[in-house]
Amino acid sequence: MTDCPMCSKWNDDADLRIAEMERCLVLLNRDQFFPGYCFVFTREHVTELFHLDPPARRTVMEEVPAVAAALNRVFAPAKMNYELLGNMVPHMHWHLVPRFRDDPLWPRPIWSEPHEPVALSTEECSQRIDLIRSALRNP
Amino acid sequence: MTDCPMCSKWNDDADLRIAEMERCLVLLNRDQFFPGYCFVFTREHVTELFHLDPPARRTVMEEVPAVAAALNRVFAPAKMNYELLGNMVPHMHWHLVPRFRDDPLWPRPIWSEPHEPVALSTEECSQRIDLIRSALRNP
Repeated sequence: MTDCPMCSKWNDDADLRIAEMERCLVLLNRDQFFPGYCFVFTREHVTELFHLDPPARRTVMEEVPAVAAALNRVFAPAKMNYELLGNMVPHMHWHLVPRFRDDPLWPRPIWSEPHEPVALSTEECSQRIDLIRSALRNP
Repeated sequence: MTDCPMCSKWNDDADLRIAEMERCLVLLNRDQFFPGYCFVFTREHVTELFHLDPPARRTVMEEVPAVAAALNRVFAPAKMNYELLGNMVPHMHWHLVPRFRDDPLWPRPIWSEPHEPVALSTEECSQRIDLIRSALRNP
């Protein structure tokens, strides 16, 4: 879809690319207020889990926990949070957010208070991406 | 686990029971501020998707969208929201929340503002449960 920001996100945010999976693409969120916050989104413009045919859904639902497991290995959070919302941008994108006991909003959801975005330097961003990519390659 | 509120929730909230699935149990949330808000939680005390063995995860990840599809048929929301958090209660429980364009927090996440809980009468509660149960049985 030409007017969907998620359909163009892989090209728009090329500096945040982590991995291309069979059904999903993985990007670091530009706002790293929550360290390790990633998006896992379908290549296909689809909006609901139950709209995917079962084999595609199965693959998506293996890719999402594979990324979560990689984030868990890199960041060792207290808990991983997984959110599939899409009220503003319906194209299926999972928010995968490592949560820590010392994060300012713990144990509340990430949306419970607004925050100023945290942008990494180009080098910090590349390092974080490399760590996640390497964990994804070595499950 | 004896001190896990999710392990005892099926017994504690017997009036909210919707369905017993192979891997998951389904309960209506007592707070119906968001109409149709349900919990889908694993029978087993497990905390992360990547801790489940692949066949169990596959079943869980078919049951979650099956409930979402049933809620979609009953409530016809603008979007289904799916959240797996567990920062307070780590036992895997999915928040499945039909979202509507006229809900007070649309299109923001359900956690973006506090709200007063909405309790249904016993009869309204049973009717809502019957509708969801019936939709689950007739996919």
